[in-house]
Amino acid sequence: MQDLINKKVAILATNGFEESELFEPLKALKKEGIQVDVVSTEKGNIKAWNEGNWSKEIAVDFTVDDIDKNNYGILILPGGVINPDKLRRDNKAVKFVRSFFESNKLVATICHGAQTLIEAEVVKNRTMTSFFSIKKDLQNAGANWVDKEVVEDGNLITSRNPGDLEIFNTTIINRIKGSD
Amino acid sequence: MQDLINKKVAILATNGFEESELFEPLKALKKEGIQVDVVSTEKGNIKAWNEGNWSKEIAVDFTVDDIDKNNYGILILPGGVINPDKLRRDNKAVKFVRSFFESNKLVATICHGAQTLIEAEVVKNRTMTSFFSIKKDLQNAGANWVDKEVVEDGNLITSRNPGDLEIFNTTIINRIKGSD
Repeated sequence: MQDLINKKVAILATNGFEESELFEPLKALKKEGIQVDVVSTEKGNIKAWNEGNWSKEIAVDFTVDDIDKNNYGILILPGGVINPDKLRRDNKAVKFVRSFFESNKLVATICHGAQTLIEAEVVKNRTMTSFFSIKKDLQNAGANWVDKEVVEDGNLITSRNPGDLEIFNTTIINRIKGSD
Repeated sequence: MQDLINKKVAILATNGFEESELFEPLKALKKEGIQVDVVSTEKGNIKAWNEGNWSKEIAVDFTVDDIDKNNYGILILPGGVINPDKLRRDNKAVKFVRSFFESNKLVATICHGAQTLIEAEVVKNRTMTSFFSIKKDLQNAGANWVDKEVVEDGNLITSRNPGDLEIFNTTIINRIKGSD
C-alpha cells in the first residue's frame, strides 16, 4: 500500500502552463499505468498557453488547500511563463514544493517550472537546467546551471523546453519504474 | 543641444508589456513636453497585455538594432510577465539597459520590468522594489528589496505594480525637470 501511494504523481500547475509540458507527461505516465493528479492553486479548470495564446483547459483534481502532501511521491512542474509566476505567489504551493525536497522525493521541472523551486529555496548547489531566460535567476539562487536536454541530480530531474519532452518523460518513467 | 538629447526618454518593451505601464508613463511624459520613443527588440507594432489577455498595439519607433544608445538620457522599463522574459533573452536589449547604468543615467522600472535589470547585472546593493513575485530573484541578485510604492536609489526609480503608476510617473517627471 505504501509503495502505491509513493508512486502517485502530482503535476502542480495553474493558468498559463505550457500546454505540451502538462499534457504530454500526463499522457506518457498514464500510459504506463502511473496515477497522476493535476494539483493547482485554483479550483475547477486551468487554462493552457500554446504558441503565444490561451489554449485548452484541464480539470484540477485537487487544490493545494485540500491535498495531503504525503499522498504524493513524485512532483512535476510544467513551465509556461505565466504559470510559475502565479504559483510562486502562493505560500501553500511553495510549501508543497519544498516538502518534496525535505523528504527527498522525486521532483521534475521543465522550462520556467524551475522558478517555483527558486521561491522554495531548494536549488542551492543543485546541477540543473531550465528555459534559458531564467538561467541567471537560477545561478543567482546558487544552482549549477547546465545546457542539457535532461539533467539528473539526486531527486531532481530538469529539462529546458518542449523540445526535450520525450527524454524528460522517459527519464521520469524510468526513475519511477526503477524504484520498483 | 546636449541637454535636449539627454532628456530624451526610451521606453524599452516588447510583446506582452502591461498596457497601463507603457501607455500611462508615455502619456504623462508627453504631456510635459518630454520626447519619448518606444524602443523594442521587434519591428512594427508590439502588443499589450491587459487583465490576462492580449490587448492593444503600439508602434515601435526604433529597434535595439538601429538606435544609438547615446541618444537617450532616460530609460523606462514597463512590466507585464511576458515582456521582460522576452527582452532579457536579447543581448542587444540587455546591453542597452546596462549602458544606462554605466553612464549613471536615469532608469525607471515597474512591476516585472526589473527582471531585465537582473540580466544586465546591475541590481547588486541597490535599494529597490518590483512586483512581489520576483522579490526573491532580485534579492538573490544582491538587491535590497523593499515594499514601497516608489523607491529612489541614485539613478534608479522603481515601483511595484500598476497601482503605483501615478507616483511613479510624477517621480520620473520631477527627476527629469529637476535636472533643468
